[in-house]
Amino acid sequence: MKRLSSLFPILGWAPAYTKADAQSDLVAAVIVTIMLVPQSLAYAMLAGLPPQVGLYASILPLIAYAIFGTSRALAVGPVAVVSLMTAAAVGQVAAPGSAEYLTAAITLAFLSGIVLVAMSVLRLGFLANFLSHPVISGFITASGLLIAISQLQHILGIRVEGDSLLRILGGIYAKLDGLNPFTLAIGMTATAFLFWTRKQLKPLLLARGLPARAADLIAKSGPVAAIVLSILAVVGFGLVDKGVRIVGDIPGHLPPFAVPSFDLGLWQELLLPAVLISLVGFVESVSVAQTLAAKRRQRIVPNQELTALGASNIASALSGGYPVTGGFARSVVNFDAGAETPLAGAFTAAGILAATVFLTPLFQFLPQAVLAATIIVAVLSLVDIAAIRRTWAYSKADFAAMAVTILTVLLVGVEAGITAGVSLSLALFLWRTSRPHIAIVGQVPGTEHFRNIDRHDVITDPRILSIRVDESLYFANARALEDAIYDHIADQPLLRNVVLMCPAVNAIDASALESLEAIAHRLGSAGIGFHLSEVKGPVTDALMRSDFMDHFKGRIFLSQYEAFTTLTAAAPNGTMTPTGSGMRVETA
Amino acid sequence: MKRLSSLFPILGWAPAYTKADAQSDLVAAVIVTIMLVPQSLAYAMLAGLPPQVGLYASILPLIAYAIFGTSRALAVGPVAVVSLMTAAAVGQVAAPGSAEYLTAAITLAFLSGIVLVAMSVLRLGFLANFLSHPVISGFITASGLLIAISQLQHILGIRVEGDSLLRILGGIYAKLDGLNPFTLAIGMTATAFLFWTRKQLKPLLLARGLPARAADLIAKSGPVAAIVLSILAVVGFGLVDKGVRIVGDIPGHLPPFAVPSFDLGLWQELLLPAVLISLVGFVESVSVAQTLAAKRRQRIVPNQELTALGASNIASALSGGYPVTGGFARSVVNFDAGAETPLAGAFTAAGILAATVFLTPLFQFLPQAVLAATIIVAVLSLVDIAAIRRTWAYSKADFAAMAVTILTVLLVGVEAGITAGVSLSLALFLWRTSRPHIAIVGQVPGTEHFRNIDRHDVITDPRILSIRVDESLYFANARALEDAIYDHIADQPLLRNVVLMCPAVNAIDASALESLEAIAHRLGSAGIGFHLSEVKGPVTDALMRSDFMDHFKGRIFLSQYEAFTTLTAAAPNGTMTPTGSGMRVETA
Repeated sequence: MKRLSSLFPILGWAPAYTKADAQSDLVAAVIVTIMLVPQSLAYAMLAGLPPQVGLYASILPLIAYAIFGTSRALAVGPVAVVSLMTAAAVGQVAAPGSAEYLTAAITLAFLSGIVLVAMSVLRLGFLANFLSHPVISGFITASGLLIAISQLQHILGIRVEGDSLLRILGGIYAKLDGLNPFTLAIGMTATAFLFWTRKQLKPLLLARGLPARAADLIAKSGPVAAIVLSILAVVGFGLVDKGVRIVGDIPGHLPPFAVPSFDLGLWQELLLPAVLISLVGFVESVSVAQTLAAKRRQRIVPNQELTALGASNIASALSGGYPVTGGFARSVVNFDAGAETPLAGAFTAAGILAATVFLTPLFQFLPQAVLAATIIVAVLSLVDIAAIRRTWAYSKADFAAMAVTILTVLLVGVEAGITAGVSLSLALFLWRTSRPHIAIVGQVPGTEHFRNIDRHDVITDPRILSIRVDESLYFANARALEDAIYDHIADQPLLRNVVLMCPAVNAIDASALESLEAIAHRLGSAGIGFHLSEVKGPVTDALMRSDFMDHFKGRIFLSQYEAFTTLTAAAPNGTMTPTGSGMRVETA
Repeated sequence: MKRLSSLFPILGWAPAYTKADAQSDLVAAVIVTIMLVPQSLAYAMLAGLPPQVGLYASILPLIAYAIFGTSRALAVGPVAVVSLMTAAAVGQVAAPGSAEYLTAAITLAFLSGIVLVAMSVLRLGFLANFLSHPVISGFITASGLLIAISQLQHILGIRVEGDSLLRILGGIYAKLDGLNPFTLAIGMTATAFLFWTRKQLKPLLLARGLPARAADLIAKSGPVAAIVLSILAVVGFGLVDKGVRIVGDIPGHLPPFAVPSFDLGLWQELLLPAVLISLVGFVESVSVAQTLAAKRRQRIVPNQELTALGASNIASALSGGYPVTGGFARSVVNFDAGAETPLAGAFTAAGILAATVFLTPLFQFLPQAVLAATIIVAVLSLVDIAAIRRTWAYSKADFAAMAVTILTVLLVGVEAGITAGVSLSLALFLWRTSRPHIAIVGQVPGTEHFRNIDRHDVITDPRILSIRVDESLYFANARALEDAIYDHIADQPLLRNVVLMCPAVNAIDASALESLEAIAHRLGSAGIGFHLSEVKGPVTDALMRSDFMDHFKGRIFLSQYEAFTTLTAAAPNGTMTPTGSGMRVETA
C-alpha cells in the first residue's frame, strides 16, 4: 500500500478530500482555465502548431499529473521555453504547417515522456543537477528574448523563417515593406495594454480602494479583456479584409486519439531534443513545485515528479498534444487562487475541455497579433538582467558559462545553447580542479592551527615544509602536485621533512596514488622524509587497501600540529621561532 | 638569446659538445641503428604500410627532435601503439595497399604534427593530464594484446581483415585451412627464439662469466640474429616457392620529398585520430623522457616536447613517413648505450639512412613471419596484468575506467577505447563530486579538533549541529548539501544553530551560493542560526565580493572550535557533555 501510494500520490490525498477542498479547487480551476485558454493558443502558435494543439496539451496531461504528481499546486501544460524548443527541434525534421510537423511534435512529446519515465526508473534525476543556475538562468533569459523577437513578425503582420536572432531580424528587415499597419496598430495597442494591466493596473485599483484579491483578479484578466476587445474590433471594422491575420477556424471537438510515429529514424533525430526538453522541463517544473511546496511546508518527491511529468507528456502525445511541463506563471496563479490538491488541475482540464468543445468558434476572429502580444508580455518577465550582473560580480567562470549559453541560444539555437553552456561549465569545473590551490602553511601562534604563510603571521621551521593542497587528488591534478612539491623543495638546504596536509583531500585516485609514490621515492633519494597529515577517514581506508603503505616510509599524522611538534622535536640542530622575531616567518 | 635557446634547446648543449660526448653518442647510435632497422620494417607492416616507410619515419624525425627536443636520451620513431592507431585511422579512409592509404598516413603525420605544435603554442599540454593512469595503462595493455593477435595471421601465413579482436579471431578461424606450414614453422621458431633471447639468454651468458654489458648487447641482438638466420633459410631452402611471404623488393634510395594531402574532407576525417595520436604519443614520450631525465638529474620541458614531437611528425610527413613519437624500448636502449646528447639521434638517423640506401636489398627475402614475431615479443611486454589487479584492489571507479578502455579497445577499436576511457573517468569524477561526503562532527575531547561522530568518540551539543562537507560546492552538488542539511535538522527540537564547517570547500560557485542563501533563509524562518567555519581565504574573498554577505545574518568563524565555544556560551539552557556520559555522543 505504501509503495502503491508513492507511485500514485493521488491515493495519499484523495481519501481525505473534503467539501472545502473541492470548493477551493473549483475556484482555482475557473481562474486558471480563463488564463490558460488564450495562453494555450498562443504557445501553440509559438511552437508552429495549429491553435487547438495547445488546448489538447492542456487537458489530459493535467489529469495524468493529478494522478502521479507530488506537488499540490503545480499546473502542467504548454510553456514558453518548451514551446520554443519544440519549434526548434521539429522544424529540423519537417516543414511548419505540414502533417509531418504535427506528427513530429506529437512524437517528440511521446519520446520526452519515455525519457522522463526512464530517468525516474533509473533514478537519473540527478542529471538535472548538472544544469547549473547560471546556465539555466542564461538559457531562460536568452529564450525569453528570442521568443519575444520571434513574435515581432506577428505584431508587424509579416512572416519570416528561421530560429536564430540574426535570421529573424534579417527576415523582418527584408520584409519590412510588407508591414500591415492595421496589424501593427492592434499588436502595439495590445502589447501596451497588457504591460499596463500587468504593471500598473493593480496598484491603481488598490489605490481606488478595491480589496487586494479583487484587484489581483482584475489585473490578471487583462489578456481576456484584450482578446474580447480585439475580436470585437476585427469583426466590427472588417479587419480581415484589411489583411489582419486571425486564428481562423478551430475544430471544436474532443481531443483526438493520436498515435506517435514509430519511425526509428525520426526517433533518432528527436532523441537529443527530447532529452534536453525533458531536463529543462524537469528543472523548471521542480523548482516551481519546490518553491510552492515550501510555502505550505509540504514536500515534493523529485523522482516521482519525473514519473508524473513523463505520464503527462505521454498523455499529451496520445491526445494530439505536444511537450508539456510544469509552468511557473500558471502554477503561481493556481496556488494564489487557492488550489488545495491536484484535483484543481483535473477541474481545470474539464474547463479547458468545455472551452475546446464549445468556445472555439469565438476565437476564430482573434488576431494573431494579440496572441503574440500575450506571449511577448509573458516572456519578457523571464529576462533577468540583474542575474547576469550578479553572476559577473561573483564568478567569472560562472559568468562565462552564462554568457556562452545566452549568446549560443541567440545566435545558433536553443539546443546548441544549452549544450554549450553545460559543456563549458563542466569543462571549467574540470579545469579548476586540475589546477588546485596549493599553499605553504605555518602554525598560528598559540593555537594548533596552520594557515597559509602568505595570508597569516605564522610560525615555520626551515627543516619542515608544510604544504597543503586544497583539492581532491585525481588524474587531472596529480602532476600539478608533483611539480609544486619539486619546486618548493629546491634551494632548501636545511629541509629534512615534507608534510602534505590533506584536510581538503576528499579522495585520492589511482593516478594520484602513483604520483604520491613518485614523490615519496624522489624525496627519499634526496634524504628528505615525506609524511601526510589530517588525512580523512575514507581516504585513509583507501590507502590502507592499496599497497601504498607497503613502500611508504613516512608517517600519517592525525593533525598538522602533531606532525609539526613531532618532527621539530625529532630533528637535530633546528630552532623554532615565533612570529616577528623569526627565521622564516612570511607575511602577506 | 635565452628565448632562442628555449625554442632550440640544441643551442644550449651544442656549444659545450666534447669529443667524449661524440664518442658516447656514436656508440649509442650504432647500437640503436641495429635495433631500429628491423623494428622500423616491422612497425610499418603493422601500420599496413610498405616497409621502407618505417625507415623513412626513422631518419628526418630524429634530426628534428635533436634540434627541438629537451630530453637528452629520447629516441623518436615509429612505435607499436601509434602504428596500430595509424592503421585504424587510415584504414577508415582508404584501402590498405593503395596509394591513397600511403597519402592518408603521410597526411595523418602532418596533421598530428600541426596539432602538437598548436598544443604547444596554446599551452594545451595540460590536456594530457586528463588521460588518467588507469586509462593509459589499460589502453597500452589492450593495444599490446590487439597487436599481438593481429600479427598471428603473419605467423600462420594467412591474411585477414578487420581491426577488432572478434573480427581478427573470426577471420583467422575462417581461413585456418589456408594455413602455410612453412610460414608457421618459421614464425613459431622465431617467436620462441626471440622470447628466449629476451628472457633467458642474458642470465645464461652472465652465468658463463661474460661481462654484463657484453651479455646485454648479445641478448639485445636477438632480432638481428633471427633476421639473418631466417633470410638464409628462405634463400637456402627456396621457401618463397613454398608460399612463405617475404618482405619483397624495398626501393633503396633516399627518403622522398612527400607532400601531404590538403583535401579538407580528408583533414576532417583524420582530425580526431590525429588529436588522439598526438595525446597518446605525447603522454608516452613525456613519461619515458621524464623517467630517463630523472636518472641523470636532468629536466625536460613538457611544453617544448610538444614542439619537438610536432616538428618530428611534420619532418616525418615531408619525407614520406608516418606518425612517430618517443618510443620506450629504443629510448632505454639509447640511454643504456650511453647517449649523452640528442646528437646520438642524429647519428642514428645517418645510420638508418645508410641502411635504407645500401642494405635494403638484403631484406628482400626476410619472411614477414619473422617481423611479426619481433612485434609480438615486443608488444607482449606492454601487457601489464599486475596493474589491472592493483587498480581493482585500490579503486573500483579507476578499475571501471580501465576495464572499459580495455574492452572497448579490444572489441571496438583503439580510438573508441581511449575516448570511452577518458569519458568514463571524467564522468565518474563528476559523479563522485556530485555526491559529496557529508559528516556530522564533534569535538575530540581535550583538543581543538572536530571529527566525524560516526568514527570518533567526540563531544557534541544538542543545540548545535556541526556539519562538514568534504567537497567544493558547485552546481552538481549544491542540492545534495541542501537535502542533507534539511534531513539533519528534522526532529531536533533543541537545535538553535547550524555550523557548516568548510575546510574542504575549495570553491563555491554561483549555484552553490544560491543554495547557501536558500539554506540560510529556510533555517532562519525556523528560528535556527546558520554559520560557516574554517572557510578558506580564497573562498572568503569570493563571498565578500558577492551580495551574499548583505543578507547573511550568521557568523563566519575562523575555526570550528571557536564556533562551538562561542555558540555554546551564547545559547541558553544547554549542557555540554563529554564522551561516554553524554546526551548525544555517537560512536561507530
